[in-house]
Amino acid sequence: MGALDYARQHRARFVDELKALLRIPSISTLPDHRNDILQAADWLLAHLRELGMTAELIPLNGGHPMVYAQWMQAPNRPTVLFYGHYDVQPVDPLAEWTSPPFEPTQRGEDLFARGARDDKGQIFAILKALEAYLKDAGRLPLNVKVLIEGEEEIGSPGISRWMDRHARKLACNMAWVSDGPMYARDQPSILTGLRGLLYTEVEVRGPAHDLHSGIYGGAVPNPVNAVATIIAGLKDRRGRVTVPRFYASVRDPSPEEKASWERLPFREEEFMRETGSTAAPGEEGFSILERRWSRPTLDAHGIAGGWTGEGSKTVIPAKVVAKISMRLVPDQRAKTVLRAFEKKVKQLAPPGIEVEVRELAGGDPVLVMPTVAPIQAAARVARAVWGADPVYVREGGSIPPVTKFDRLLKVPTVLFGFGLPDDNTHGPNEKFHLPNFHRGIETVIQWVEQVAG
Amino acid sequence: MGALDYARQHRARFVDELKALLRIPSISTLPDHRNDILQAADWLLAHLRELGMTAELIPLNGGHPMVYAQWMQAPNRPTVLFYGHYDVQPVDPLAEWTSPPFEPTQRGEDLFARGARDDKGQIFAILKALEAYLKDAGRLPLNVKVLIEGEEEIGSPGISRWMDRHARKLACNMAWVSDGPMYARDQPSILTGLRGLLYTEVEVRGPAHDLHSGIYGGAVPNPVNAVATIIAGLKDRRGRVTVPRFYASVRDPSPEEKASWERLPFREEEFMRETGSTAAPGEEGFSILERRWSRPTLDAHGIAGGWTGEGSKTVIPAKVVAKISMRLVPDQRAKTVLRAFEKKVKQLAPPGIEVEVRELAGGDPVLVMPTVAPIQAAARVARAVWGADPVYVREGGSIPPVTKFDRLLKVPTVLFGFGLPDDNTHGPNEKFHLPNFHRGIETVIQWVEQVAG
Repeated sequence: MGALDYARQHRARFVDELKALLRIPSISTLPDHRNDILQAADWLLAHLRELGMTAELIPLNGGHPMVYAQWMQAPNRPTVLFYGHYDVQPVDPLAEWTSPPFEPTQRGEDLFARGARDDKGQIFAILKALEAYLKDAGRLPLNVKVLIEGEEEIGSPGISRWMDRHARKLACNMAWVSDGPMYARDQPSILTGLRGLLYTEVEVRGPAHDLHSGIYGGAVPNPVNAVATIIAGLKDRRGRVTVPRFYASVRDPSPEEKASWERLPFREEEFMRETGSTAAPGEEGFSILERRWSRPTLDAHGIAGGWTGEGSKTVIPAKVVAKISMRLVPDQRAKTVLRAFEKKVKQLAPPGIEVEVRELAGGDPVLVMPTVAPIQAAARVARAVWGADPVYVREGGSIPPVTKFDRLLKVPTVLFGFGLPDDNTHGPNEKFHLPNFHRGIETVIQWVEQVAG
Repeated sequence: MGALDYARQHRARFVDELKALLRIPSISTLPDHRNDILQAADWLLAHLRELGMTAELIPLNGGHPMVYAQWMQAPNRPTVLFYGHYDVQPVDPLAEWTSPPFEPTQRGEDLFARGARDDKGQIFAILKALEAYLKDAGRLPLNVKVLIEGEEEIGSPGISRWMDRHARKLACNMAWVSDGPMYARDQPSILTGLRGLLYTEVEVRGPAHDLHSGIYGGAVPNPVNAVATIIAGLKDRRGRVTVPRFYASVRDPSPEEKASWERLPFREEEFMRETGSTAAPGEEGFSILERRWSRPTLDAHGIAGGWTGEGSKTVIPAKVVAKISMRLVPDQRAKTVLRAFEKKVKQLAPPGIEVEVRELAGGDPVLVMPTVAPIQAAARVARAVWGADPVYVREGGSIPPVTKFDRLLKVPTVLFGFGLPDDNTHGPNEKFHLPNFHRGIETVIQWVEQVAG
């Protein structure tokens, strides 16, 4: 009867099965839930095998296992990698939940439960799309790999390390991730860019030991004043980062993206309310969305040194440490920026001050051109399923596995989310809009057909 | 026979008595030593009465008592206030003491014990000078008040508050303090200036709550970057403080002081070794001694905010707090500078940043002109007793009681120390050079005669 019809006929069962998955409290950050994590992984393993896929658990040293499955019986057809995660956020404050977080409850067209949208509901929509092919036609029109990790809510440390050694296992032609919201209700949205990150710790040292500011103040190097001079010197009056050649490889967003952003219902007052700020300062000459999505920037995250207790202590401390990061955009490279940053920081150090720069984290930005075939296919499907052209948006932060797909697999990833902006992700009363669950299934079914070639 | 002869005849007994005082472990900062504090105060009270003075303990609410004594039987003669302290520093690290800190031990011409120089030995030299008059002639050539506090090593909080209400009790024509070192061996030194202090806490606030730097970075105010901009903006490239009119009331040192400083055996390399610094940066156009003694300056002492733990957290914190102080010189006033500082800090705050300035401590600078009669008298005595012209030095820090004498009693204080630079004050093996103890007694005897008129 066709995969689409199959999916429509089994909607009620799909929701029931999703509820079963949602009942497992697989909170990755709480050690007490280790057994629930393993139970969720086992549940998915059994489910994928039931669909007819070859499936296994991939243990991650000291972490939560990944569920991996594949169906590779379509020779000469492309291979798609689907990625998602089965772990969820903690549920505090529990008192604010209208129904218990691990007792999935339908109210109106919404299904309330922790993980309903992030990400169990979305990854399950993908599995149901695959089922529609496998149970109806007995086969998929292309090759499929599925990777579902259990550490996304704690920063994906295991998968990142694992991929450095085992990327070949995930070799594919394109990837698909559904783990986000649409920009607005009924507005299909495709994420085309993720900023990269270069996160450093800067240690600023002055005198060999703490000094009394009364006796020595005015004639010795002061690391606190020095770190201020350094941080202040890293941006100019127009909000531009002063690291040499910082902007040399920054690419302008594509015309498709720019056109998309102008159509977005973005309101500055709402942004200010959301951030609790009285201003939205940044690099001159760029809109707020550009500053967050397509422009690199620099932020200090924390600083500590000297006397920070109650009252007054007249000390000139020997050292102070600051955390400073840069968000990177295509085609900046974290390694190149690190070298230039370190040099600049040392140049900014006043006399008598020594500086050490340590890299704590680094990841390159990701850009998927809206013109590549998998995105174009997704755009066509968006119109068919959701009744609207998609908007191309970006995200200011990074998604570590997607960065790895870009760098190690060298394939484009379609980031197409089925959530809504008001789904209360990470908060109490997380929900998934069930019409979006079903449209998500149909989106994947149609996209698979489009890219099968 | 005269006070000087009396003092010379009783040298051995004077040292024995000093040892008795040194045996009392009157450590002011350790609660366990509360009884020792009281014992030292009682010991001095009895001793002053024994000399023929009217003496009393002045309790300080919640603190250690002051010992007060007076002899006011010289009508139409001036009144001198002598100040010192009977409390001492802790003794850690105990293992580094050659002889136990509270068993006074003579080695060569030095007497080793905690408090030997700071300040029991020096205040006791004053008492012995008074004894020489009172026991020999039965009277003093002028009126004398003696104030010995027990909280100097913890910042003199009680005496400062007490003086605000009871300054009249200390009414006098001049004050004398012996609580410091000479600039070098055999080089009598008179302290003519103490810098004042304005110590503030600056709270810098941005967004109402912490934000994710990936999502918002580049388009929201960042308090850590802002505090850096503020601190960096408080000094210009030449090391001058940018607070408006900061230097307007700064007085040049007197010609006597300048001439004195040029004669001092100051060596920059030694200063760098002492501070453990590779440079001695500061306000352009001034020597290191001027920067520390006669120029005001600004130092940040500590800073804390945002993520300061291990690793990387991509937060834009809602606020950060910095401790910033200014050292003030004559004729700057802490209150005036505070207003201008607060205004400047707020001007330096970038858009979207709110700043609050809190005053934590404030004290005006003190200047005693080398030309006033009590100093000129001390200079003559220095030549007679120590065989050399005194040098006029300053101190970069403040001595709270002396600030109060200046502001509330409005009298000049002669700050004439009998210590040596290598006396290990506050460290293990503190000592007092006994020839200096005896010369100190003679210095006070002769100075009293000079200023009696």
